[in-house]
Amino acid sequence: MSLAPVLDRIDADLPQAVARLQELLRIPSISTDPAYQADCDLAADWLVADLAAMGFAASKRPTPGHPMVVAHAGGDGPHVLFYGHYDVQPVDPLHLWDRDPFDPQVEDTPKGKVIRGRGTSDDKGQLMTFVEACRAWIAVHGSLPANITLFFEGEEESGSPSLVPFMQENAKELTADIALICDTGLYGDATPAIITQLRGLLGEEITITGPSKDLHSGMYGGLAMNPARVLARVIAALHDADGRVTLPGFYDGVPELSNELAAAWDDLRFDETAFLGEVGLAIPAGEKGRRPLEMIWSRPTCEVNGMWSGYTGDGFKTVLPSQAHAKISFRLVGTQDPLAIRAAFRRQVQDMIPADCSVSFAPHGASAAGQMTTTHPAFDQARKALSDEWPHAAAYVGCGGSIPIAAYFKDILQMDAMLIGFGKDDDQIHSPNEKYDLSSFHKGIRSWARILHAMTQAA
Amino acid sequence: MSLAPVLDRIDADLPQAVARLQELLRIPSISTDPAYQADCDLAADWLVADLAAMGFAASKRPTPGHPMVVAHAGGDGPHVLFYGHYDVQPVDPLHLWDRDPFDPQVEDTPKGKVIRGRGTSDDKGQLMTFVEACRAWIAVHGSLPANITLFFEGEEESGSPSLVPFMQENAKELTADIALICDTGLYGDATPAIITQLRGLLGEEITITGPSKDLHSGMYGGLAMNPARVLARVIAALHDADGRVTLPGFYDGVPELSNELAAAWDDLRFDETAFLGEVGLAIPAGEKGRRPLEMIWSRPTCEVNGMWSGYTGDGFKTVLPSQAHAKISFRLVGTQDPLAIRAAFRRQVQDMIPADCSVSFAPHGASAAGQMTTTHPAFDQARKALSDEWPHAAAYVGCGGSIPIAAYFKDILQMDAMLIGFGKDDDQIHSPNEKYDLSSFHKGIRSWARILHAMTQAA
Repeated sequence: MSLAPVLDRIDADLPQAVARLQELLRIPSISTDPAYQADCDLAADWLVADLAAMGFAASKRPTPGHPMVVAHAGGDGPHVLFYGHYDVQPVDPLHLWDRDPFDPQVEDTPKGKVIRGRGTSDDKGQLMTFVEACRAWIAVHGSLPANITLFFEGEEESGSPSLVPFMQENAKELTADIALICDTGLYGDATPAIITQLRGLLGEEITITGPSKDLHSGMYGGLAMNPARVLARVIAALHDADGRVTLPGFYDGVPELSNELAAAWDDLRFDETAFLGEVGLAIPAGEKGRRPLEMIWSRPTCEVNGMWSGYTGDGFKTVLPSQAHAKISFRLVGTQDPLAIRAAFRRQVQDMIPADCSVSFAPHGASAAGQMTTTHPAFDQARKALSDEWPHAAAYVGCGGSIPIAAYFKDILQMDAMLIGFGKDDDQIHSPNEKYDLSSFHKGIRSWARILHAMTQAA
Repeated sequence: MSLAPVLDRIDADLPQAVARLQELLRIPSISTDPAYQADCDLAADWLVADLAAMGFAASKRPTPGHPMVVAHAGGDGPHVLFYGHYDVQPVDPLHLWDRDPFDPQVEDTPKGKVIRGRGTSDDKGQLMTFVEACRAWIAVHGSLPANITLFFEGEEESGSPSLVPFMQENAKELTADIALICDTGLYGDATPAIITQLRGLLGEEITITGPSKDLHSGMYGGLAMNPARVLARVIAALHDADGRVTLPGFYDGVPELSNELAAAWDDLRFDETAFLGEVGLAIPAGEKGRRPLEMIWSRPTCEVNGMWSGYTGDGFKTVLPSQAHAKISFRLVGTQDPLAIRAAFRRQVQDMIPADCSVSFAPHGASAAGQMTTTHPAFDQARKALSDEWPHAAAYVGCGGSIPIAAYFKDILQMDAMLIGFGKDDDQIHSPNEKYDLSSFHKGIRSWARILHAMTQAA
């Protein structure tokens, strides 16, 4: 089956593909907020209907949380599983959006056309690049060039609680020759990237309780311990003056960068001044003496994602708060053990709590870092196919984010996973005004069409 | 004019006095929240109407903020000004209240009857003790035993922005022989107290800005500075390991306790274990080596009243926040200079901000500590009158709270101020489930009737 007419069809069908994506984007499938449960369900239904109309055997599959979507089509050629997620991040602070996050539109910007809205880049827009590539193959040739399983999740932004049990229970159905995951980005604006290392993620919410109720800071201030002060000490103690995380054993399993990878990354000529300048910063804030790319790709971190205590409204209230809270997460690399780090974190915090205060912990996910083996021939095939589509040759890169599913495919289904995505650094995922470049969407669809073709030719 | 029938009248009229207080409590006059502006106005109207009905020349007096209420009655005898405030604290977190904070009711508790609701103790219930004492005098004798001016404010819980200008513009009308202020508490459950020292209050809200927008902690974590981490360091650095505030010059003007006062306070046999145990704590958390009573009455403090950053909702959002905020206040003593401390605070914070982050400051009030001279004969008269009413003799004590009006009376109107109140430590002012003991209300009214009588007899 020839590739050229498929690429032509993709070009001609782009306005319709954008309209379909807009339909999916209008469904506010925020998985972390129970108020949007019905919308998550609706997004799954939308995907099932769209895939069924294309000829996939598609079904919505219940889980204790939000449903999975699984669809099968094709039959000849290699067996490929494609993964994406249809859930999106919350949208607060809403007032910082320039438009309704769930009324996506194509906008002209100085850098070209973009689709603006929550989920455009993370991950509905990316997910649909593969779906549209399949649609074009079917439209032109009446069938797919490979045996394809689609696997869409609705809990990626809330820690994927149902994913591992679902994979275990449906291992036979989901196992393919290789997994393709589209939830990452280009390197820069024009270099396609295949991720070969991902950071893991460990989340903890802590609540420190001092007095049994909010107190008047005049009546009690000086005599009663203030839990906000304890929390500040706990957080401040998590890093030393060199930016290193202070937990005992934290750096166990953190590998030094190999000489080859260091050279390859240096060749990428990462411009940290431009990268940070885009978000109003200038100074790499990680461990002293590390390359900026190491700070985001291959070094572990500890971040405060949220904290709150006392009176946070307008005006002033001289309260001595009863409780102080923080959501803290760690990005992990190499063979760092999430559970050992959780234990070390809890011990260090517990040791800093005054005897008459208390602390409680709520876990929020614990996934180890992922390291891809690139020996499967699909890696080379995809690298060449991507290099044909984009201005620059494709690169093997790292990723600071956490996509634990890559490790699950390996551990549970014994499949290698190939992470290819078309997001850009300025997509503002997880932030107000998220967008996806129209060129990412368009060339993303073409990239998958080429990759499927390359894998089929080789097979 | 004899005292005994006035006390009898107070006893007989108690149910009606409670009903009147409930009417005033039902008006949600939260001064710090603009949504309740009309309610503050309504509370002032209610007071004017009640006082006018008793024969006071009462008026609501406009200010740029909430109105003052000024009322005059009597003529013979000493000229006494009584101050209270009709505004109340916000009620959040509302879900921790056992009942509607603005539907006050008398409740039976193991410790006796209480009136439960926002403002019962701070300060509507206390304010009404004096009004009811006046009502009883007029009811029994047809007139007051002194020349009385009532002065009620509606902005005490929001920093009293209009108070000083109003006092300056109406100095002649407001100047009396002595000021009485009812916004404090008993010492323990049965010892009436006259406050002779009050802590000052300095408030600052700080906002630390790192990235220009919220970021994905995977994409940027490790490279981009997290302002919540900066804020934690700033707050943690405000105290040293001995609980002392670290700002340079902070302890300038902080006096050591005199031998007499130290002995008098030791005589009070303050039970810090019981005081802290009441709120679930056990360990005095202030400066090492200080008496617990010093920690709350005569030592300065620094407290976090509120802090917030990033995602604070349900679930987890791996955001690297753009901003981190805190509301921080200092209780001041002796001759500590609020403006010098504000400057030292801002310098210390500014020095801890990374070069590519920024900090902004919003001031929230700055009042010096107050030290009463007790040479005016009214102090001894009130002390004796209070000792007649209560089980224990009255004591001169300190107060950890800040009632800057006492200093204003001295500085602007050259009047001594006598602070007498009937609140209890467990009144939960500024907290959910605020209450005022019915016995505080009842014996408070009787106390003022006695004090007016004592001052008149002496005059």
